[in-house]
Amino acid sequence: MIDITPILSGERLALSRLLTQIENDTPEGNEALNQLFPHTGQAHLIGVTGAPGTGKSSLVNRLAYAYRHPDDGQPPKRVAVVAVDPTSPFTGGAVLGDRVRMKDLAGDPGVFIRSMASRGSLGGLAKSTAGIVQAFDAAGFETILIETVGAGQAEVDIARLAHTTLVVEAPGLGDDIQAIKAGIFEIADILVINKADRPGVENTERALRGMLNLAHPVRRVFQHHGQIMEVQPTVDQDEAAELWQPDIYKTVATDGSGIPDLVTAITQHQAYLENSGDWVRRERTRLQTELENLLRETLITRWRKQISDEQYQAFLESVFERQIGPIEAVNKLLENKF
Amino acid sequence: MIDITPILSGERLALSRLLTQIENDTPEGNEALNQLFPHTGQAHLIGVTGAPGTGKSSLVNRLAYAYRHPDDGQPPKRVAVVAVDPTSPFTGGAVLGDRVRMKDLAGDPGVFIRSMASRGSLGGLAKSTAGIVQAFDAAGFETILIETVGAGQAEVDIARLAHTTLVVEAPGLGDDIQAIKAGIFEIADILVINKADRPGVENTERALRGMLNLAHPVRRVFQHHGQIMEVQPTVDQDEAAELWQPDIYKTVATDGSGIPDLVTAITQHQAYLENSGDWVRRERTRLQTELENLLRETLITRWRKQISDEQYQAFLESVFERQIGPIEAVNKLLENKF
Repeated sequence: MIDITPILSGERLALSRLLTQIENDTPEGNEALNQLFPHTGQAHLIGVTGAPGTGKSSLVNRLAYAYRHPDDGQPPKRVAVVAVDPTSPFTGGAVLGDRVRMKDLAGDPGVFIRSMASRGSLGGLAKSTAGIVQAFDAAGFETILIETVGAGQAEVDIARLAHTTLVVEAPGLGDDIQAIKAGIFEIADILVINKADRPGVENTERALRGMLNLAHPVRRVFQHHGQIMEVQPTVDQDEAAELWQPDIYKTVATDGSGIPDLVTAITQHQAYLENSGDWVRRERTRLQTELENLLRETLITRWRKQISDEQYQAFLESVFERQIGPIEAVNKLLENKF
Repeated sequence: MIDITPILSGERLALSRLLTQIENDTPEGNEALNQLFPHTGQAHLIGVTGAPGTGKSSLVNRLAYAYRHPDDGQPPKRVAVVAVDPTSPFTGGAVLGDRVRMKDLAGDPGVFIRSMASRGSLGGLAKSTAGIVQAFDAAGFETILIETVGAGQAEVDIARLAHTTLVVEAPGLGDDIQAIKAGIFEIADILVINKADRPGVENTERALRGMLNLAHPVRRVFQHHGQIMEVQPTVDQDEAAELWQPDIYKTVATDGSGIPDLVTAITQHQAYLENSGDWVRRERTRLQTELENLLRETLITRWRKQISDEQYQAFLESVFERQIGPIEAVNKLLENKF
C-alpha cells in the first residue's frame, strides 16, 4: 500500500519513485494508480508528434519554458514533459534526450521531465505512458506535454492520449510522398512547421495547406481553369462555425520565433474543447483506448500462464516444421488442444 | 474451401483475390493460408525500413528491377513487393504509392506489388502482412521485399518478418539526435545511405559509422588523445569471423547508382544466413512472433464476445466518471465481475 499523499502534494522524490514503479509495472505502482485515479482529469494533455528531424524536442522545450514564463500576467503553470521514444527499445537514447533538453529548464521546480524508452512491447509502452500521465495529472501538473518520436501507428496511438495534438513538420522533409500522411492529418489539431527559417518553408506550407483543404472540406478549395476557387461548404455554416479548423503555425524552436502565437493557438484549442463538449468526448475516447490497451496486454499475459513452457515449445516446433499453420495453431492453443 | 492450386502455380488473378481475402481477414483467407503454409519457407524475405524522406520506395523499386534484370547471367527472380504503411490508417496513400512505383515495373509478369494501409489495429496489420508474405512465398516468388514506412516500433516489428533487413538513411536527416536510433541499428543487417548525391553525405556516413562501431564491438574504434584507435576485439577472432558485420552502402535510387553493390551485399547476407544456421534461427523467431501477434489479436476479439455491449458500456461509464481506475477495471472485467 503506497501512501499517495506526497504524490498529491507534488513531492518530486515520491513522484519520481512512483514513475519508476509505473514504468516497471509493479503491483505497488498499479495500486497507487488506482488510488490516484479519482484525482485525475484536471490537466491539459498536449501531444506533440512528427517525423524525426523536425526538432520536436526543442519545440517541446520552448513550450514548457513559455508555460513557465507567461507574458500575459497569468501565474505560471506547472509543466510535465513525457518524452516517449518507441524507436529506442534497447539503449539510453532517452537519457541523452534528457540532458539535451534540460539546459533551459534545469532547476525549475515547476517542471518535471520524464523520458521513456520502450523496454518491452508497444502495448507495455502505451500502458506506462498512460500511467505516467495520470500520475502527473494527480500530482497537480496543469500542462502535460507528451512528445512522441516518429509518425507510425504507435505514435498516433500515444498521441491519442492527448486533448490537443500538435503535428510537427519541417522544410525539406516533404519531398517524399510518404513524409506527409493523411493518417497524421486526421489527428492534428494544430500544425507546426518548425525550422521555419530554413529554405523550402513555402513548399512545406503549400503542401500542408493543400492537405488541409482536402482533409477539411468546409474550407475546401480547388483549381478550375488554373484559378484557385473557394468551394461552398457542404456543411451548414452554423455547424461549421463550431468545428475546430486546424491551422498552420511557423516556429523556429532554436530562437523561440513563433512560440507565443503557438501557445495562443493551444489555449484557443483548449477553450474550444471546453465550450464544444469535445473535452468530455476526448476524455472518454482516451480512457476507453487506455482500458482496451490494458485488456489486450493483460489477456496475453494471463493466457501465457495457462500453458507450460514445454507444451508451448512443442507447439512452436510443429509450426517451425510447417506441420501446422500459425492461424490453425492459434485456434488449437485457444481451444486448449495442446 | 478455396482451391489453392491456382495460387501455387502463381496465377495472378487468383493470388490477387486471395490477398484481398487475407487483408479482410475472411475465413476463406485463413483456410487458404493454412493449406498454403506447408508450401512456404522458400522465399528470401528482405525488409526495407527507414524514416520518411529517405526514398525507400524508389530504392525498393530499383531493387525489384535489379532482381528482374540480373547482370550475372543468372535467371531473373520472381519478385513480390509488400509496401506496408502503418501511418496511413484512413485513406488512399497506398494507392498513390502504387502508381508512383509502377512506372518502371509495369507489365512485368514476374513482379507483383501490393500496398497495404492499416485499416484497423496495428496487430491486424502485422497479421495481414505476415499472411500476404506467406501467400507470395507459396506462390513461388523467390524474393519478397517488405517495405515499411517510418522507424517506429511498429515498423521494427514488421521488419522482423524479414531474413535480411535494410535500414535506409539519407543525408540531412541526421542532424536531429533522434534521427538515428539505437533500436533501428539492432535490426539492421545492411545500412543504406540513399540520396547519396546530396550534400551532407559524409556527415551521415560518419554518424552511421560511429553508431556501427558502438553497436558492433568487434570493430570498435575510439579516440585516444585525438587519434582514432582500433581496439582489440573482445570476441574471439574465429568467432568474430562468423558474425555478420553490417556495412554501409551508398545509393542514388533515382539514377540507380550503387544498386549492383547493394544487391551483391544482400546476396552475401543470404549466403551468410544459410551457412551460419542463422536462416533457421530467424525463421523460428519470425514464426514465433507471428504466432504471438495472432494470439494477442484473437484473445481480445474472443474476450470481447463474452460481454454484452450494455455491460461493457456500463463499465466504461464507471471509468469515465472516475469511480474506478482502468487497471482495476481490467481486473474486474477479466474476473467476469460485470
